[in-house]
Amino acid sequence: MSTAAPRATGQDHLWSVDEHLEDILTTVRPLEPIELNLLDAQGCVLVDDITVPVSLPPFDNSSMDGYAVRVADVAGASEEFPAVLDVIGDVAAGQAGLLQVGPGQAARIMTGAPLPPGAEAVVPVEWTDGGLGEGPVAAMRARSLAPEAAGGQVRVHRPAEARAHVRAKGSDVQAGDRALDAGTILGPPQIALLAAIGRGTVRVRPRPRVVVMSTGSELVQPDEELAAGQIYDSNSFALTAAARDAGAIAYRVGAVADDAETLRTAIEDQLVRADLMVTTGGVSVGAYDVVKEALAHVADEDEPGSGVEFRRLAMQPGKPQGFGSIGPDHTPLLALPGNPVSSYVSFELFVRPAIRTLMGLTDVHRPTTRATLSADRPLTSPKGRRQFLRGRYADGAVTPVGGAGSHLVAALARADALIVVPEDVESVAPGADVEVVLLG
Amino acid sequence: MSTAAPRATGQDHLWSVDEHLEDILTTVRPLEPIELNLLDAQGCVLVDDITVPVSLPPFDNSSMDGYAVRVADVAGASEEFPAVLDVIGDVAAGQAGLLQVGPGQAARIMTGAPLPPGAEAVVPVEWTDGGLGEGPVAAMRARSLAPEAAGGQVRVHRPAEARAHVRAKGSDVQAGDRALDAGTILGPPQIALLAAIGRGTVRVRPRPRVVVMSTGSELVQPDEELAAGQIYDSNSFALTAAARDAGAIAYRVGAVADDAETLRTAIEDQLVRADLMVTTGGVSVGAYDVVKEALAHVADEDEPGSGVEFRRLAMQPGKPQGFGSIGPDHTPLLALPGNPVSSYVSFELFVRPAIRTLMGLTDVHRPTTRATLSADRPLTSPKGRRQFLRGRYADGAVTPVGGAGSHLVAALARADALIVVPEDVESVAPGADVEVVLLG
Repeated sequence: MSTAAPRATGQDHLWSVDEHLEDILTTVRPLEPIELNLLDAQGCVLVDDITVPVSLPPFDNSSMDGYAVRVADVAGASEEFPAVLDVIGDVAAGQAGLLQVGPGQAARIMTGAPLPPGAEAVVPVEWTDGGLGEGPVAAMRARSLAPEAAGGQVRVHRPAEARAHVRAKGSDVQAGDRALDAGTILGPPQIALLAAIGRGTVRVRPRPRVVVMSTGSELVQPDEELAAGQIYDSNSFALTAAARDAGAIAYRVGAVADDAETLRTAIEDQLVRADLMVTTGGVSVGAYDVVKEALAHVADEDEPGSGVEFRRLAMQPGKPQGFGSIGPDHTPLLALPGNPVSSYVSFELFVRPAIRTLMGLTDVHRPTTRATLSADRPLTSPKGRRQFLRGRYADGAVTPVGGAGSHLVAALARADALIVVPEDVESVAPGADVEVVLLG
Repeated sequence: MSTAAPRATGQDHLWSVDEHLEDILTTVRPLEPIELNLLDAQGCVLVDDITVPVSLPPFDNSSMDGYAVRVADVAGASEEFPAVLDVIGDVAAGQAGLLQVGPGQAARIMTGAPLPPGAEAVVPVEWTDGGLGEGPVAAMRARSLAPEAAGGQVRVHRPAEARAHVRAKGSDVQAGDRALDAGTILGPPQIALLAAIGRGTVRVRPRPRVVVMSTGSELVQPDEELAAGQIYDSNSFALTAAARDAGAIAYRVGAVADDAETLRTAIEDQLVRADLMVTTGGVSVGAYDVVKEALAHVADEDEPGSGVEFRRLAMQPGKPQGFGSIGPDHTPLLALPGNPVSSYVSFELFVRPAIRTLMGLTDVHRPTTRATLSADRPLTSPKGRRQFLRGRYADGAVTPVGGAGSHLVAALARADALIVVPEDVESVAPGADVEVVLLG
């Protein structure tokens, strides 16, 4: 790390939420693709179009447990006048090439087993006597208990058309078809298809590794004793959980004390496992705001634009924010404010979209909706700042929970939405229509 | 495992989807709670009500970087006629008990730091000269660069009311308040609150361990060579992914051949790590349906009602189903049919709710909605069976993808919804109102 010239934008510029977000989203690039085992790629974004290498099913096969027959042999068959056929053996799933069905013959066949040569249709076992000579049966006898049922004779009670109960080769997908498009998110059904066409690995953008570090000499690990002036560290827990929720592999680093050198070392130590660094605290105007102190003048001289810039944003909570990149790999870093609600709201607005951009997703934002404000009195908001209040959303209405204070963690835990009050609005009356971010 | 009497319900009973589901949901019980580290409990259900042990914040503290002052000392202050106070030192976050603010004095104070005795309010640094004697400043100088700023004099340009910029002890939550109710699902904001009140561990119902095993001698592992009559195993991949998606810790067991003894051994080997067993294939009426063969007569004689029962369900796809419990711990087992679409739909309808019941969730089902059928021709459905067709849902309309065939994996990968055709409906016209299960 070394000192570089400050960026073009000055310290006095008050950034809008949208400007800050745009800076992040145009700077952060999707991670390089890697080849992953299918189940490790769950939730990841496919990089290449996938073409079907082999038709599905790969061969004509039976869709029922029954008998593979020639159509002419069962024409006109009924329970009163069954077609009597010689059973030449079993075709189980996974078998092939053993039997040939000739005139007057049938092969007992299982669901998914290949239609043997000579056979033209399958009659379900329920349309036969199952070889027992005593009227229709509901099921075959198990091979292991009654091996003789693979021979003898079977009475067929109904005719079958050509191809009846036969799944044609390629009826699901044909070799050469497009199975999945690049950009597809791999959920269970997409994983099913990839496995079905024989793909055991797949090239995707990996889940980003996110290191979450809280800063503050006042922070104590939960379950330890609080001394005077101390509070428990909650940000590193909350944001690690939120990063996982966003799709990342997240590593929580315990609270780091307010000392610039300690912090710099801690960050450098973590860079090796980070695709994205997130810090909380130490970004404001105080004399001990060491994140700012440690990172504001850190950049790679050879890389214009690298380094971390600290900004004032026209928003509440979350006015002070830092963003930039650090280390030899120019790892993106978001430095969030330290108040629990400020850091959580900042995560939702800025870090979550950054994580989802790293994953290669195009839909990186939380869904928003319009809702009717349900409140006893007007919401007030400072002019010129976009305010994000915590709320509960249900059935088209949103109710604020807790106040605007950025230390109100208990209210945050009851919220499932953020109520957005635009920059040019200072008061919102009950019953008004407001924008709501759904926290999902 | 030993032989037991069959259950009361006979083999001939045709079960409705609802009867089968009810049997599963009344049999499967939530897992016993365990104490987990906070971040390991993400997504889990809280077992106990959680009470706040210590008020938050635990002490009066500053909401701004600024100066802790006595109200009388700054009364009437302005930029023209500033109040000039002696700075007696810094109060950083995490410090306490070092300073006492007397008349004519101020302590430089950081956000989150405890209000020192004697002080009644905080004036933000932006309302002062920051000790520089040159008009209002935007920020404090870093302690490490300008230690002298913790002393000297500060000019305050504005008065402050009592308690201005002070967060009162207990203004977030009070000791004794209910923090979270039993039954709460622990997302990031709830984890934030638990950490903030000092809880490092929490008693929750753990994620269920689900073992997924596909059966079939025709199944080949992806990336291997297909011989004649073979297909790739996709069910074990799809359902492992789906189980993880539902909240489980899922273990995939590769395809097991159609041999009852091999299968029994494979299942017994897995029981040690299973809270729920899921198999696919081998449950129908064929001569090689070994899941049925291996499990239909397996039960603990001492436990009435244990054992696995195989049923015909009035649904399509997914007619043959097995459900029961096995092994010394009566581990629940769902035996799903082997066709990929059948097993996937069965998972959504029966296994996912079972997993979520094990987790202690009360909302165990996928959301459903009504939609307008967008199709070129009517959907047909067999009488007396509830049909689940794959579809794509958007903006109140649902469009079928692929046909009804239970082997159509490619169509499944393009679907995001199931179209439900009730038992008593045989045809649904385009434009009709249908029930839709949203696969999320």
